[in-house]
Amino acid sequence: MENEIFQLQYALDTFYFLVSGAFVMWMAAGFAMLEAGLVRAKNTTEILTKNVMLYAIACTAYLVVGYDIMYGGGIFLDGIVGDGVTGAAEPATYAPSADFFFQAVFVAATMSIVSGAVAERMKLWSFAAFAVVMTAFIYPLEGSWTWGGADVFGLYNLGDLGFSDFAGSGIVHMAGAAAALAGVLLLGARKGKYGPNGEIHPIPGGNLPLATIGTFILWMGWFGFNGGSVLATATVESANAVAVVFMNTNAAAAGGVLAALIVAKLMFGKADLTMILNGALAGLVAITAGPDTPTPLMATIIGAIGGVIVVFSIVFLDKLKIDDPVGAISVHGSVGLWGLFAVPLTNDGASFTGQLAGAATIFVWMFVASLVVWYILKLVMGIRVTEEEEYEGVDYVECGMEAYPEFTNSGK
Amino acid sequence: MENEIFQLQYALDTFYFLVSGAFVMWMAAGFAMLEAGLVRAKNTTEILTKNVMLYAIACTAYLVVGYDIMYGGGIFLDGIVGDGVTGAAEPATYAPSADFFFQAVFVAATMSIVSGAVAERMKLWSFAAFAVVMTAFIYPLEGSWTWGGADVFGLYNLGDLGFSDFAGSGIVHMAGAAAALAGVLLLGARKGKYGPNGEIHPIPGGNLPLATIGTFILWMGWFGFNGGSVLATATVESANAVAVVFMNTNAAAAGGVLAALIVAKLMFGKADLTMILNGALAGLVAITAGPDTPTPLMATIIGAIGGVIVVFSIVFLDKLKIDDPVGAISVHGSVGLWGLFAVPLTNDGASFTGQLAGAATIFVWMFVASLVVWYILKLVMGIRVTEEEEYEGVDYVECGMEAYPEFTNSGK
Amino acid sequence: MENEIFQLQYALDTFYFLVSGAFVMWMAAGFAMLEAGLVRAKNTTEILTKNVMLYAIACTAYLVVGYDIMYGGGIFLDGIVGDGVTGAAEPATYAPSADFFFQAVFVAATMSIVSGAVAERMKLWSFAAFAVVMTAFIYPLEGSWTWGGADVFGLYNLGDLGFSDFAGSGIVHMAGAAAALAGVLLLGARKGKYGPNGEIHPIPGGNLPLATIGTFILWMGWFGFNGGSVLATATVESANAVAVVFMNTNAAAAGGVLAALIVAKLMFGKADLTMILNGALAGLVAITAGPDTPTPLMATIIGAIGGVIVVFSIVFLDKLKIDDPVGAISVHGSVGLWGLFAVPLTNDGASFTGQLAGAATIFVWMFVASLVVWYILKLVMGIRVTEEEEYEGVDYVECGMEAYPEFTNSGK
Repeated sequence: MENEIFQLQYALDTFYFLVSGAFVMWMAAGFAMLEAGLVRAKNTTEILTKNVMLYAIACTAYLVVGYDIMYGGGIFLDGIVGDGVTGAAEPATYAPSADFFFQAVFVAATMSIVSGAVAERMKLWSFAAFAVVMTAFIYPLEGSWTWGGADVFGLYNLGDLGFSDFAGSGIVHMAGAAAALAGVLLLGARKGKYGPNGEIHPIPGGNLPLATIGTFILWMGWFGFNGGSVLATATVESANAVAVVFMNTNAAAAGGVLAALIVAKLMFGKADLTMILNGALAGLVAITAGPDTPTPLMATIIGAIGGVIVVFSIVFLDKLKIDDPVGAISVHGSVGLWGLFAVPLTNDGASFTGQLAGAATIFVWMFVASLVVWYILKLVMGIRVTEEEEYEGVDYVECGMEAYPEFTNSGK
Repeated sequence: MENEIFQLQYALDTFYFLVSGAFVMWMAAGFAMLEAGLVRAKNTTEILTKNVMLYAIACTAYLVVGYDIMYGGGIFLDGIVGDGVTGAAEPATYAPSADFFFQAVFVAATMSIVSGAVAERMKLWSFAAFAVVMTAFIYPLEGSWTWGGADVFGLYNLGDLGFSDFAGSGIVHMAGAAAALAGVLLLGARKGKYGPNGEIHPIPGGNLPLATIGTFILWMGWFGFNGGSVLATATVESANAVAVVFMNTNAAAAGGVLAALIVAKLMFGKADLTMILNGALAGLVAITAGPDTPTPLMATIIGAIGGVIVVFSIVFLDKLKIDDPVGAISVHGSVGLWGLFAVPLTNDGASFTGQLAGAATIFVWMFVASLVVWYILKLVMGIRVTEEEEYEGVDYVECGMEAYPEFTNSGK
Repeated sequence: MENEIFQLQYALDTFYFLVSGAFVMWMAAGFAMLEAGLVRAKNTTEILTKNVMLYAIACTAYLVVGYDIMYGGGIFLDGIVGDGVTGAAEPATYAPSADFFFQAVFVAATMSIVSGAVAERMKLWSFAAFAVVMTAFIYPLEGSWTWGGADVFGLYNLGDLGFSDFAGSGIVHMAGAAAALAGVLLLGARKGKYGPNGEIHPIPGGNLPLATIGTFILWMGWFGFNGGSVLATATVESANAVAVVFMNTNAAAAGGVLAALIVAKLMFGKADLTMILNGALAGLVAITAGPDTPTPLMATIIGAIGGVIVVFSIVFLDKLKIDDPVGAISVHGSVGLWGLFAVPLTNDGASFTGQLAGAATIFVWMFVASLVVWYILKLVMGIRVTEEEEYEGVDYVECGMEAYPEFTNSGK
């Protein structure tokens, strides 16, 4: 009977991981719709293609090498087996393949952050090449230092320094934003975005219902992202933790919405929907580093501060002429950093110095490694489409088809 | 080992609540897409904004005061704690924060019903102000009399009278519709909807794929809405109840689709997609008050009657010049009432008098309280946009951006 | 305590079935969006209507007669009861109504495959009539021979011959494709698709973001489709199996994307988004017959081969002038067949002769029975709209409303 109870715990934890993983997989649709809604019609097919492609690349590259780099244990290629024996020092308390699935969808989420920032002017196949390197090596190495517990290049251990990032405000979100920033800096702004005298020309998103459903999908998927990161649910203690994480994740997103709504109204005089959507995502990113310790009111406040930061960050990056069509660097980078520093406010297990060390390590590694890869790609195959292709839209040149052939002026 | 079994029960019930709650949260996306698809393009950004905003307001207002009004126990503000001790008379059998999360998303659903009915002509910020009062006070007080078990203004107890509303045909759906009706009556019809000689001009929805995915999202979310309302799943009895609820919820929606399809074909000569979608929702609303007791065939019939009612109700309200762009008052109000009265047909625990008392109490309170608040808002800040703004569309004036800037004639 | 452990197993297995079933129900939205995105704007309302309608027909017809035909046991009409007693030889290990729900949504998925292939020219009500016969009789009889374990017309038993189809590459997907093929052959190609001298004119899909979200929805729903088909999860063994199925389902879809991407690039010179989406679905269909036995790398390869097959199959069917607007016959038929034959590669319990016998039985029955029904419908009520209606689009004639009244040239 002891054994039957163990089996039930194992089964419940495994099912919880799988449901959480499916929710995180669903975030791929969220990123795709968000980005497709925020670009112009002429670049929509291509951004959809990128999003489907990067998810497939991430899952495959992580299977082939990434997971082994991040967690070791001889699971290279086909070491993940159903009964959880291969390479494990002790018996699993949930299915090893559920763990792999849950980890793999996180890699895809990290990569999704990049695609929006470089939208509307990057070559599709250069992006694909970057995605391979990023999901096979750059992210898994970073992951090995954080969730994997390995020393950073054998020099220091982030866990020992008091670094804590529950579900990845830094490990996933700021990491993706750092890789995106490197790409955007090498790529340059879209034609017509910035005028010769410092003018900033808004380029409105082409389909706001898509951007909105994308945001709701991400919000829903985040329950799996943060909730699954408790890593167990079959005891009273872990079940309570998962429940608190769900409640706080939702509360922070709500706080982000309200803050961005009010700040945008004060700054621009309007209820700016794209800022509100970014506010929701900012609330979610902000709470991700520590959704288990705050009270729900504190979680609302942490999310609301994220919602304020995202609006100012978007405005600020535009002043620096760093052109990010969907605001991904602000949502995931600026707010991801805030999320890391919010942890010690409610969690004694984290220290400001630890958070600082972790943030610096993640940012420097992700930015520098990505910059090197983007630079090599720029030399080897080029990363930017031609001016004419950019003017015509990347859909036709890269994908051979329009997203809305019957709706727009360029349609038949 | 006894304790380990308790822990497993606790964990499974908690996980079930959280998954159910995430499904209900997802309904927010469903309402947003349904409404965005049924309004005209020029009012789409604003209805999306309203839907994201009202969800954030509902979750925050319910956290700050609503939950305490509805269930008491000193959980005001930050009383919800992970270990479930605060204010509880007896130990919890699932995580208290999971319960809060599940309740909070119900409030948002109630408020979502209102947004569609007042679409295309209400001021955004008046709607926001109403949402605060509705989700902080009006709905929680109503909830305290029903699911909370408190006496109605200390006078009578609905449970004692034999009132039964399993998951909220009346408590959520008819309640939202009553609040919406009050707003619509004060607001008046959209310009051009009704001609001077009693003509009714159809105003077709701008994006029917959006309306359809919105309906499917609601249908899916409803499994959490009704299924989660069993409140437990870790025993054979409760698991059977949850399974019956899933089966019947699906059957009733299917019945609603088929009935609305046939009635619309007979009345209008066409397979009217918007009526079919409303038929699906009507089936869902109809079964919500009692999804646990009918056989699946009976559930199909209950849903089908809902599908018939919704078509006639939409036609009838139009004759009365009550302008509801998405049919929310018919779907949630007329059919919600039917749902309440369908309960005693299969459930001995409910009586017709009890249902009548409950329906009257809910309707009168929600309608009158909402009317007062809408009226005060009308005096203080106005609730309707100007005629010119309505003609131009509320997107630009309220949100400063079009939903589809490249598609419509008004686009660039 | 023994009893309490049984209750927990029962409850967990039931909950797992219900969540899986809700995911499969969600595939109805996926098919609806995929098909709505791949047809032209003028036929969008009608394809949405068909998808909602067929789901409602499938659930109701399967409830009334189909389930009893497939599994027997006197569950005709209202035999499904919560406590699982009616007609059961032994006590259930999970709620019977959860089983019914899970089976019912599979029928709807099978029927959804048909709607895309006959899009843009079939009469709505003929399609509805076919859906009734298909979901009440044709599919349930086929299901009785496979998952139901009955002899094929009393002659031979597929299970005894070594036929194995875990979650339905053949039983669901190829079956649906065979029914679709029969309809397409009788219906003929869309006007203008094939020129008099063998030219093939591409008819681009009208809304690719819809097609993309539809694919992501199907991908997500497939975790329930394949994962739920383990039929239990409350032991270590079954939990491991479910986890392996999730991992492999995802891996195969990723493999299908990458293969279709590369093949399309080589053949057409572009990253063809519609081929990539079909590649994802092909990967999913390919792994469905045996997602439990391959390693994840092998699953990726099985999916990738599916992705190659689907591109060639689509091109080949076009050469034969078999006009399938969404590629459903290739995705579900050609690749479904591959999925069946991939099983013996990793599963000792399946034999090539068994797979051949099963594939032949399913195809012949589904194709011939469907052909007879389509033919009768053609004689009795006609199955094709008039040439003028096809030119104008079926939306107005069948549904009385356009999907995008403000966007297209035909709009107001």
